[in-house]
Amino acid sequence: MNKLTAVLLWSCPDRKGLVSRIAQFLFERGGNIVDLDEHVDRDERMFFLRVAWDMTDFAIAPGGLEEAFLPLGREYGAEWTIRLDSQRRRLAIFVSRYDHCLQEILWRKGLGEFDAEIALIISNHPELGFLAERYHIPFHVFPVTEQNRAQQEELELALMDHAHVDTVILARYMQVLSPEFVAKYPRGIVNIHHSFLPAFAGGNPYRQAYERGVKIVGATCHYVTEVLDDGPIIEQDIIRISHKDSLEDLIRKGRDLERLVLARGTRLHLEDRVLVHGKKTVVFD
Amino acid sequence: MNKLTAVLLWSCPDRKGLVSRIAQFLFERGGNIVDLDEHVDRDERMFFLRVAWDMTDFAIAPGGLEEAFLPLGREYGAEWTIRLDSQRRRLAIFVSRYDHCLQEILWRKGLGEFDAEIALIISNHPELGFLAERYHIPFHVFPVTEQNRAQQEELELALMDHAHVDTVILARYMQVLSPEFVAKYPRGIVNIHHSFLPAFAGGNPYRQAYERGVKIVGATCHYVTEVLDDGPIIEQDIIRISHKDSLEDLIRKGRDLERLVLARGTRLHLEDRVLVHGKKTVVFD
Amino acid sequence: MNKLTAVLLWSCPDRKGLVSRIAQFLFERGGNIVDLDEHVDRDERMFFLRVAWDMTDFAIAPGGLEEAFLPLGREYGAEWTIRLDSQRRRLAIFVSRYDHCLQEILWRKGLGEFDAEIALIISNHPELGFLAERYHIPFHVFPVTEQNRAQQEELELALMDHAHVDTVILARYMQVLSPEFVAKYPRGIVNIHHSFLPAFAGGNPYRQAYERGVKIVGATCHYVTEVLDDGPIIEQDIIRISHKDSLEDLIRKGRDLERLVLARGTRLHLEDRVLVHGKKTVVFD
Amino acid sequence: MNKLTAVLLWSCPDRKGLVSRIAQFLFERGGNIVDLDEHVDRDERMFFLRVAWDMTDFAIAPGGLEEAFLPLGREYGAEWTIRLDSQRRRLAIFVSRYDHCLQEILWRKGLGEFDAEIALIISNHPELGFLAERYHIPFHVFPVTEQNRAQQEELELALMDHAHVDTVILARYMQVLSPEFVAKYPRGIVNIHHSFLPAFAGGNPYRQAYERGVKIVGATCHYVTEVLDDGPIIEQDIIRISHKDSLEDLIRKGRDLERLVLARGTRLHLEDRVLVHGKKTVVFD
Repeated sequence: MNKLTAVLLWSCPDRKGLVSRIAQFLFERGGNIVDLDEHVDRDERMFFLRVAWDMTDFAIAPGGLEEAFLPLGREYGAEWTIRLDSQRRRLAIFVSRYDHCLQEILWRKGLGEFDAEIALIISNHPELGFLAERYHIPFHVFPVTEQNRAQQEELELALMDHAHVDTVILARYMQVLSPEFVAKYPRGIVNIHHSFLPAFAGGNPYRQAYERGVKIVGATCHYVTEVLDDGPIIEQDIIRISHKDSLEDLIRKGRDLERLVLARGTRLHLEDRVLVHGKKTVVFD
Repeated sequence: MNKLTAVLLWSCPDRKGLVSRIAQFLFERGGNIVDLDEHVDRDERMFFLRVAWDMTDFAIAPGGLEEAFLPLGREYGAEWTIRLDSQRRRLAIFVSRYDHCLQEILWRKGLGEFDAEIALIISNHPELGFLAERYHIPFHVFPVTEQNRAQQEELELALMDHAHVDTVILARYMQVLSPEFVAKYPRGIVNIHHSFLPAFAGGNPYRQAYERGVKIVGATCHYVTEVLDDGPIIEQDIIRISHKDSLEDLIRKGRDLERLVLARGTRLHLEDRVLVHGKKTVVFD
Repeated sequence: MNKLTAVLLWSCPDRKGLVSRIAQFLFERGGNIVDLDEHVDRDERMFFLRVAWDMTDFAIAPGGLEEAFLPLGREYGAEWTIRLDSQRRRLAIFVSRYDHCLQEILWRKGLGEFDAEIALIISNHPELGFLAERYHIPFHVFPVTEQNRAQQEELELALMDHAHVDTVILARYMQVLSPEFVAKYPRGIVNIHHSFLPAFAGGNPYRQAYERGVKIVGATCHYVTEVLDDGPIIEQDIIRISHKDSLEDLIRKGRDLERLVLARGTRLHLEDRVLVHGKKTVVFD
Repeated sequence: MNKLTAVLLWSCPDRKGLVSRIAQFLFERGGNIVDLDEHVDRDERMFFLRVAWDMTDFAIAPGGLEEAFLPLGREYGAEWTIRLDSQRRRLAIFVSRYDHCLQEILWRKGLGEFDAEIALIISNHPELGFLAERYHIPFHVFPVTEQNRAQQEELELALMDHAHVDTVILARYMQVLSPEFVAKYPRGIVNIHHSFLPAFAGGNPYRQAYERGVKIVGATCHYVTEVLDDGPIIEQDIIRISHKDSLEDLIRKGRDLERLVLARGTRLHLEDRVLVHGKKTVVFD
């Protein structure tokens, strides 16, 4: 009844005939392309592709997809992933005390905007447990400190591993993750930073913005890398402010931005619309 | 030295294997795809494609392109056009007394933003002749009235025909074109309307907006059809206003919008990035 | 401990010395102005003022304010209101089946963004009762139809009267209010319409927008008057869309807009920042 | 015939009764207030005021204004300026090779958007002389280098002094001004920086933005201080970009932003709508 769809994300050095080759590969095996986006970065001479096709009459069974694309990937020196929409992503949401980003994700998940499972919520504080309870999602508290970070993260990772988590959403989580943690989920940790990066990286971005006297504040959704607030940017947006806005107003207005930008970035990630190359992203929205 | 590129704009009822078929068609003839965008309208079951390819090693000579695509187009019941970037469009710009849109187009043309020739400027008033002179473009005045419209338009059309004009830009031209005139340039007349259509169609949109007390004003770039301010929309944008803004302020702020929206819409049209289906557009930007 | 603040909203035909006169009036009675905004509409020759002052050392007791301003108001032919921040507004929220606007209001109320009491929630459907329960707010269902509207509204009005409601928020309430109902709360009913008014007034604005092929959709927060979707506009905002967006995408994206625009408009109303003159508003934000 | 209007810009430590006192001061002398904006910065306990009044029946002659306000200013420890709209500012525009900001200013000046005189244009390159000629404005070339900066600036300052210049507009002037030069025009030098400051200060901001992979680029209009790109911000705006945009696209799109943001900032400055306090501005727009 339900159609099965596969999505291929592909990046490789640019070469002649790439679109044609991959389209032909799919067509010959009975795959009807339902969506295709490609981009060539002329400076980097790189080719990026997102293609989604209907698996109904496809000659290759879902289980054999990875193997089937191996030779093609090798031929072009490509970095690629395939995912079936039946393989729903499993999320761990990390929070601290602010509820707005978590509320937003839970509400949108309920509306069907995110095609994923929220496997668990992890926090360094107990306050937001009531929200997890309301939505019947396991909630775990790890009171991380500078001192116990390594061992707490080990427990978190074990829990996430057990719950088959493949994606981490940092929904205003106020702790820094260790490089070891980050390395476990390459391009799998999505963060919201409450400024227009690279402006105001680090702590207290609203205070920084307030003191600098900017006329616009922003929010940035990005992948987490080892370097703080430096990962590839998925989505950004801004809101105008004025001298009338106190620091509290900035925080209030910024909240609306954080929610929306994190939601948009998360959705783009969950729909396999983001390709990463170096420090930059290709976003096929 | 200069690469020759061809652009195919294609729309047809959706069918399986379309992208693959066209990509393969180009590849087999040695055409290297440099840009491909496709869109499927699921409600209308229509397929839209824009594909650009390098003609350097293409098996079909520029002169034979139309003929070569005929069978494919017929097979799919497609509506399609092909243009080589060497076939630069030839523009007639229509103006009245306001200079801002004309200034913008001339300035951008000088910067190389528009890959086209401005064949002539037509006005129903003599005032902007100095601008045409400054840029060495033929300038013709046709003082159109309700009474003489038919015969004046005939003269205009003869002039445009003689100058091989294929695209008309209405840069705040304050006269309505007759259906006969419009029919000569199907999807070839680009207009800027100084409101967020369909709000405030017709005359004096800023006054209408001012009197309604809206908090935002807009501008709309669209193709001209027989029905006033009703053609397919290419581009829109808006600007916030407040109670502090007088009607004059709306006009002043709106000017900035009109210039930019007309420039963006014109560029999209000139780069063959706009497909029309019924009253709607597919814009591959 | 808590400072008491009074806010005067004042509009009258423009005359010389108005600001000075009112400022002096307050100063002479020991009122320290903490905020003052004025606007002169030169076309209408009208003067608008919002002034907030600290009541701590004010010579007139809170109970005597209205009487004290009567002579001044009469002298200038002014329309004016005074409200102390201790007199919190009491809201009735009207909803149907969509939860997003109600969720937003309840969440913001919890955060302290709205200085008001939510006295009750009224719906023509039972579905959102769970939300009212979660926040411990009385919830009443009135299954309004064309036939029973008059008597149902009478019951609603009695209930609201009993609960001392002074402001009605229509949070995507899908029924039209009768002129009699509207007349009971002049400039006291705040609605969110899911289009950029005056474009797409009436039913199914997203479908209208989808079919017209606009490149931007909007939302409008306005006061309700007898004429549908025609009341004075408090706030508007927009979001860009493209041919890729289905009708469902428009609805999804529009939801985010509706929530924010209704929240902003509600806040402006609750903080006495909106003056109405004819069909237009002066918004001192 | 023409009304004479005075504008007072005033900032001082906040005290009770300030608005009332100044309004009364003007009223008692027959000044009809046509515009009044005030702002209190609660963190800094500072009061900011902009008040414009009709001089027609004012008891103090234009020549005596400064003296008349001295006692009041001293009493409150205020920093203040008064300007009559008859005292038009005299501008020096500094440019290098890019024409877009200069074109914009000259065009708007012609439309009457800027109430000021352009006394002269100074450049470190001869290329834009044709524009100065077109508008009949004196054009001077000073080929500034690291080595000759001091003596060239001295010549420039002499020229500006002779032409009674009071405001400098840096319209994409690619040279850094010396602290000595900057000190001659405190809060009188308006610059456009082609990034969303504080992001991408310094050289090549578009390249920096391109390499960082941001999804939005900005422009900032600010007063010049001794520290590069660090002065009080008057106005900012942004435009969305995507992975499709090359560095050249960023430059092209950014141009539109630079023009508008510089024009808006310049207008705000020329209308005495900007107050500076430390690193921040109060903008009464």
